[in-house]
Amino acid sequence: MIWLKRISFKNVGLKYTLSPYDEPVIRIKPKETLIVDVEDAPSGQIRKNGDFRDRSKIPFGNPLVGPIYIEGAEKGNTISISIKDIKPTIGQGSTYLSEFNQRYLTDVPVLRFLNDNLPRRTKICKIKDGLVHFDNLTIPYKPMIGTIGVAPHPQAESISSSVMPGQHGGNMDISDICPESTVFLPVFHKGALLYIGDAHAIQGDGEISGTAIEMPAELTIKVDLKNEHINWPRIETDREIMIVTTTSAARSFEDAIRIAFLELVMWMEKKCGMDRLDGLMLCSQVGRIRVGNLWAVAAAIEKKYLKT
Amino acid sequence: MIWLKRISFKNVGLKYTLSPYDEPVIRIKPKETLIVDVEDAPSGQIRKNGDFRDRSKIPFGNPLVGPIYIEGAEKGNTISISIKDIKPTIGQGSTYLSEFNQRYLTDVPVLRFLNDNLPRRTKICKIKDGLVHFDNLTIPYKPMIGTIGVAPHPQAESISSSVMPGQHGGNMDISDICPESTVFLPVFHKGALLYIGDAHAIQGDGEISGTAIEMPAELTIKVDLKNEHINWPRIETDREIMIVTTTSAARSFEDAIRIAFLELVMWMEKKCGMDRLDGLMLCSQVGRIRVGNLWAVAAAIEKKYLKT
Amino acid sequence: MIWLKRISFKNVGLKYTLSPYDEPVIRIKPKETLIVDVEDAPSGQIRKNGDFRDRSKIPFGNPLVGPIYIEGAEKGNTISISIKDIKPTIGQGSTYLSEFNQRYLTDVPVLRFLNDNLPRRTKICKIKDGLVHFDNLTIPYKPMIGTIGVAPHPQAESISSSVMPGQHGGNMDISDICPESTVFLPVFHKGALLYIGDAHAIQGDGEISGTAIEMPAELTIKVDLKNEHINWPRIETDREIMIVTTTSAARSFEDAIRIAFLELVMWMEKKCGMDRLDGLMLCSQVGRIRVGNLWAVAAAIEKKYLKT
Amino acid sequence: MIWLKRISFKNVGLKYTLSPYDEPVIRIKPKETLIVDVEDAPSGQIRKNGDFRDRSKIPFGNPLVGPIYIEGAEKGNTISISIKDIKPTIGQGSTYLSEFNQRYLTDVPVLRFLNDNLPRRTKICKIKDGLVHFDNLTIPYKPMIGTIGVAPHPQAESISSSVMPGQHGGNMDISDICPESTVFLPVFHKGALLYIGDAHAIQGDGEISGTAIEMPAELTIKVDLKNEHINWPRIETDREIMIVTTTSAARSFEDAIRIAFLELVMWMEKKCGMDRLDGLMLCSQVGRIRVGNLWAVAAAIEKKYLKT
Repeated sequence: MIWLKRISFKNVGLKYTLSPYDEPVIRIKPKETLIVDVEDAPSGQIRKNGDFRDRSKIPFGNPLVGPIYIEGAEKGNTISISIKDIKPTIGQGSTYLSEFNQRYLTDVPVLRFLNDNLPRRTKICKIKDGLVHFDNLTIPYKPMIGTIGVAPHPQAESISSSVMPGQHGGNMDISDICPESTVFLPVFHKGALLYIGDAHAIQGDGEISGTAIEMPAELTIKVDLKNEHINWPRIETDREIMIVTTTSAARSFEDAIRIAFLELVMWMEKKCGMDRLDGLMLCSQVGRIRVGNLWAVAAAIEKKYLKT
Repeated sequence: MIWLKRISFKNVGLKYTLSPYDEPVIRIKPKETLIVDVEDAPSGQIRKNGDFRDRSKIPFGNPLVGPIYIEGAEKGNTISISIKDIKPTIGQGSTYLSEFNQRYLTDVPVLRFLNDNLPRRTKICKIKDGLVHFDNLTIPYKPMIGTIGVAPHPQAESISSSVMPGQHGGNMDISDICPESTVFLPVFHKGALLYIGDAHAIQGDGEISGTAIEMPAELTIKVDLKNEHINWPRIETDREIMIVTTTSAARSFEDAIRIAFLELVMWMEKKCGMDRLDGLMLCSQVGRIRVGNLWAVAAAIEKKYLKT
Repeated sequence: MIWLKRISFKNVGLKYTLSPYDEPVIRIKPKETLIVDVEDAPSGQIRKNGDFRDRSKIPFGNPLVGPIYIEGAEKGNTISISIKDIKPTIGQGSTYLSEFNQRYLTDVPVLRFLNDNLPRRTKICKIKDGLVHFDNLTIPYKPMIGTIGVAPHPQAESISSSVMPGQHGGNMDISDICPESTVFLPVFHKGALLYIGDAHAIQGDGEISGTAIEMPAELTIKVDLKNEHINWPRIETDREIMIVTTTSAARSFEDAIRIAFLELVMWMEKKCGMDRLDGLMLCSQVGRIRVGNLWAVAAAIEKKYLKT
Repeated sequence: MIWLKRISFKNVGLKYTLSPYDEPVIRIKPKETLIVDVEDAPSGQIRKNGDFRDRSKIPFGNPLVGPIYIEGAEKGNTISISIKDIKPTIGQGSTYLSEFNQRYLTDVPVLRFLNDNLPRRTKICKIKDGLVHFDNLTIPYKPMIGTIGVAPHPQAESISSSVMPGQHGGNMDISDICPESTVFLPVFHKGALLYIGDAHAIQGDGEISGTAIEMPAELTIKVDLKNEHINWPRIETDREIMIVTTTSAARSFEDAIRIAFLELVMWMEKKCGMDRLDGLMLCSQVGRIRVGNLWAVAAAIEKKYLKT
């Protein structure tokens, strides 16, 4: 079909930052569908048991494909990305522990202080028939996109790493960013400059060891454009609408939750005419919190409560 | 039936602290079933629209019934409380906003600094046929116990308020503490000294306005005893096992999440022989985080992954 | 002199909590001077090199003398405690590391998770001629009171441990609580019920290893009473007035700092007529922050800027 | 003198980010002295009473001069910047409050939620004879550099804003960065790419209103180079050595303090041979904490304790 475009990291290379300075790797129009081949978070270094991340060769993690230029997107707009499909490309994913992951267990380098370290361990997990094989356990294949974002706000962070999320999206690791959901992102630069990568076969809340079942994948997405301003990323699924916020700019986790709910409630007022105090009181009964990684959190409400 | 005991706040009065100094209001044996009538969190001050909390008359919130003395419970043991039923006693609940609730929106008294305030609002919600009537919306009746705990550790807090949760349980507001679940609490004092109250007809994650649908209720619980030591409260449902931790002793929310998962993983190792690093890697894929109020969080894993 | 009273832990025993349920160990009148003999934070278990805390014998730390009943003190009043002198009673203090102190380095039990531990180490430090001998270094003798507080607010915490500080004071470890300073504490119970202990020969900001130079000491204090309500502890020295706040009730450290300054500014407005926005802008130029331990922080301004 | 170079924002323009993509505005050799004319943090928009920040014209704050290319600086090195002098260039500074500053009082947009706002206020402060005139108060002229940093680590943040500090330095607002002190920064890019600006006539700990006495200034600095790797910025004064850390990457403030002390102690071991556990125990007695703004904190020890 003429409206279908394809792009692969093998042709356009990997990026480890979201930047307004990169040359677009492809240009698409609103409503076009794009298939993106993405490498896995360890940049392909872990393919069999015993493999480890060699940071001397590839110091950074979480490689992305981008920027994808959306024709017509202007600063102050919102782009939407509908996730149509996420397919594993090599029939497997991996998860691993190593000294680097200790920062997920505590922000303080106490292990280094005591000359101790986290052991290394790798698991290669076959993905087949809707299941992920984790040692002798089978767990569901529930694919999601860990990192999706745009070139960030010029002052908040002119270029963001692919590790720390923010108002521009990025490494949110929210498991609701999955097939049949739509992500909304604010636009800070002409063309929006979308980056995407970090597919997971499945991931738990908090991604507590530091890695999900990381897999190279083929992502099918449909991009669109809205002439509307949003402060923070949003996710819409069949059931829910969610606001994502982050702790990255030195906010406490509690405050990130509070911000997400206040933004959600003000949005409910704007969209559905529900008074914001009523909205706050309603969220206190039926709101849901999704923790992504320890730097991103979302507040959600079911759409059935949002009668206009 | 002879094994069924009853107790009502109307007879034994309300407590606003969990304390080893209170006289037990009832003594029960392991495996006995107890029906407890509890008052609602606003101490019955809000029964119709326009009612507000009068803190000059009742300065404290979250009244409890207790202590319930469990025969045979010794320091270092664990008690379990199986929730059999939660019934509204007056066919309604309430939720409300007032100046006091502003501390749920931010920990900093900026509104007071600016001589501003949060408006007051009360909603009386009828509860009928499995539904809660919130203005013209119907939301499900999903009852839960907000506050359940024991007299706390003698030094951590010899007496705890009914507001701040801790290793002794207390005001966790975890919505998984509902019919068909079992709560496990560490015992710090002879008789365990259980306190219970703060029933909710339904509550969202984070209880973001500061109040759920608060209702007076009749709680049916069955208490038992285990000769086993636990560090933090646990919840077991049909599907999951959860560890609850709290930010109350000046921990960050992120660290509370980390502690909950490390405790969960060490428990998985002890109970099922799953190596703790494998357990950590598994939780990173299938772990779930439940946020109670902004001071309590739980890490959960489905029991189907815990084959021994 | 007839107005001088004495009390020693040897006669009245050690307390590890601040509680409204304890019998007063002494009653004094406003303006009376009291000499209090206090044991050191490790309860006397560390007197020579190689000694360690034996928690099987004394599980708690930070023993206090109290409650001291202040005649005439009523709920809603403020008591002031002027520190006249702090003398070491055995010519030495101690500081130590052990497995227990790891919680000062991180709130997450990663060392336990990895079956690792913090090594044990004890240092006995002679105190002589205004100097403290720390191995072959000499550091100044700058004595202070680590823990001073009243029986806490009935609901905030009916009984507080001697470890976690709060609005009632307690284990603040603020080094400005030293000779020639005055501490102000809110009164929550008749008689105020003052507790005191945990003398330090010197302590750095943050008390980062978990222990100062802990010493048994003779404290000379003069207590007085004001018919005034305060929200948080205050300290007045020759140079400065300070507000102390705590993170103990799950506040972030940043928010504790913000609260301390807003309280300071509102107090400046009340006392000196300086408009609160001007006061905030002034504190932004000449305010000082003192970190006690990692749960207590103070905001200070020099009195010379407070012309009325 | 031939070794003296000059650069002014009037010739090279203002930058609001620290970026490896900017063309150097000047190149200097190690040991050269440079005079830099910097604009004030409000970009010159506030010169008289009644002036306010017009964010429609200049949306960003904290303009910098840079990048300054240091010949010979390679990734992995350290540069040192000795502050020789800080002179006000127009004899005055300013401090101000406006709606934008409310984020300094709380991270949660509660005022926006309630349609309230922080009032606007500007103060122009004359600077003369070592004094700053703040309304009718005189406060000392204690000049400092608020923002000094290098183009950041390629993945941590390829380009940093001039607002959020990090391992590359940036907007630390540490008042010890003053005449007679030396700042050490890690080098992430060839030439180091130094940025500098945001001079303050004086600033309190925490910069609690969000602005110091902001002034355009002439900075005299001498830059040098060391073939040594550091993790975080350092400051050396006559009396002390300090490590600066930041909360910017979603660390808690407490953890930032812990990291600063552990880094300080490991540095003491490396430089002076003091065993790291002894160093930790010593810092617990004589360590000092300096809070910059609410995103940067430093741990310090006096050099007299560091006998080698």
